[in-house]
Amino acid sequence: MQLVRLGAAGEERPFVRAGDGTLYDLSGLTADVDGAFLAADGLARVAAALEAGELPAAGPETASLRVGPPLASPGKVLCIGMNYRRHAEETGAAVPSEPVLFMKAPDVIVGPDDDVLIPRRSTSTDWEVELGVVIGKQARYLDSVEEALQYVAGYVVSNDVSEREFQLHRGGQWDKGKNCETFNPLGPAFVTADEVPDPQDLGLRTWVNGKKVQDSSTKDMVFTVAEIIHYLSQFMVLRPGDLINTGTPEGVALGQPEPKPYLREGDVVELEIDGLGRQRQTLRQA
Amino acid sequence: MQLVRLGAAGEERPFVRAGDGTLYDLSGLTADVDGAFLAADGLARVAAALEAGELPAAGPETASLRVGPPLASPGKVLCIGMNYRRHAEETGAAVPSEPVLFMKAPDVIVGPDDDVLIPRRSTSTDWEVELGVVIGKQARYLDSVEEALQYVAGYVVSNDVSEREFQLHRGGQWDKGKNCETFNPLGPAFVTADEVPDPQDLGLRTWVNGKKVQDSSTKDMVFTVAEIIHYLSQFMVLRPGDLINTGTPEGVALGQPEPKPYLREGDVVELEIDGLGRQRQTLRQA
Repeated sequence: MQLVRLGAAGEERPFVRAGDGTLYDLSGLTADVDGAFLAADGLARVAAALEAGELPAAGPETASLRVGPPLASPGKVLCIGMNYRRHAEETGAAVPSEPVLFMKAPDVIVGPDDDVLIPRRSTSTDWEVELGVVIGKQARYLDSVEEALQYVAGYVVSNDVSEREFQLHRGGQWDKGKNCETFNPLGPAFVTADEVPDPQDLGLRTWVNGKKVQDSSTKDMVFTVAEIIHYLSQFMVLRPGDLINTGTPEGVALGQPEPKPYLREGDVVELEIDGLGRQRQTLRQA
Repeated sequence: MQLVRLGAAGEERPFVRAGDGTLYDLSGLTADVDGAFLAADGLARVAAALEAGELPAAGPETASLRVGPPLASPGKVLCIGMNYRRHAEETGAAVPSEPVLFMKAPDVIVGPDDDVLIPRRSTSTDWEVELGVVIGKQARYLDSVEEALQYVAGYVVSNDVSEREFQLHRGGQWDKGKNCETFNPLGPAFVTADEVPDPQDLGLRTWVNGKKVQDSSTKDMVFTVAEIIHYLSQFMVLRPGDLINTGTPEGVALGQPEPKPYLREGDVVELEIDGLGRQRQTLRQA
């Protein structure tokens, strides 16, 4: 299944897209797609209602609605740094021996086609296409990597927008360059885990103004999705609705020769992952 | 005013303590003390209801209730590192030239007297008494430091519990040692800003098993509360209900000679800040 949230920012309503492409309204089944919905077995209830033909088809007016982020109010957004071998190489960093963790605040999440704001005094705003993982049930001190994918509810395209000068040259921790307003376009769809048989075999790509700049596969990840979930669960509790951004492949502006092609007002960034859909953002000045 | 939340974890109810110490029930005025409450001028409504004598006094059964964190569901928890001159010295770090930012996830917040869990495989769990600042209205690209304190709703005692090996030796970013389960005891009271005439003149202290280990003043801060708010607002949007942990003074275990006195199961940590109250946690094994 693919869940989407449509409507103005803050007023999105939930829908499910069936295998044949038909869109059904979930408003009668849940107020939203969030951690509480996932914790209460919401995906199973949607599947059952879909199978039983109990959901009303979405009206034609939905075609013109804004696409919102497909997950509401994640409890936390955990981000893995330097998790693709060739991205570590392009930035001159060593391939990490264990996952590097930093964080985004959930309030930087926007829809997949919303404008991205270049922060005031920014010199180095950059793109990062990433496989986003949505946690479906609580994971705490997992015993093994083998069981870790059971805790995944689904997958989503995530753009881990980054301001490199804020991230790397303004005081030592990366979070400062990762939490600017609008810095995490998410979606279009929350694709349930059963539709992604192998999260380590997904192509992911980015275009800037129509030119392809990232073109890789999750095969190049240093730590797999399962390894990341198992690892993080040794340090913190993962809860339903938490989002993990699993790192970006090579091809970001930071990794290119001077003058690095950082984003400017009016630029258009498009990102896609096999089976998860495509995003398109226009850059605006904050 | 001092707001408190009393009751079992996840079932807390809001109360206000008047100047004479009497506790009044806020359940009829708001479901909770959170960002939405602050954004909707909740503090002014509480003050008006208190003045008008409209609030019911709390029943005697409240005396036996658990004290919860006095703020529900912060949107984000922003933490400032190395923000006391003598703490920077004790850890061997340079005094920073601009605020160092890292983050905690809101789900690590617990009540001021709840148990703190030592993570499995932890060797270096440490305490950090901090002045917590609660944002009352949206702050985005503030023009000046002078206006910044207008955005503060109130203050709270915060223990920024830290696992130093996870923080410093497990992959380069501090967040990994800051987000373990129960790692942010908060409270007991959310003290409104009008009761704290000078946030840069507050004594703050920590005891471990009755021995005083931290004893300083917010006068030693490198960046004042106002400077921090102004600074952060240049990088991200601060929203009602966001919490800022403003850094810890010298006297943490990390800063002491070997063998460093990191926390062990059964240890008792007490923390207080002038006018904001006192916390008491027992350390347990996760």
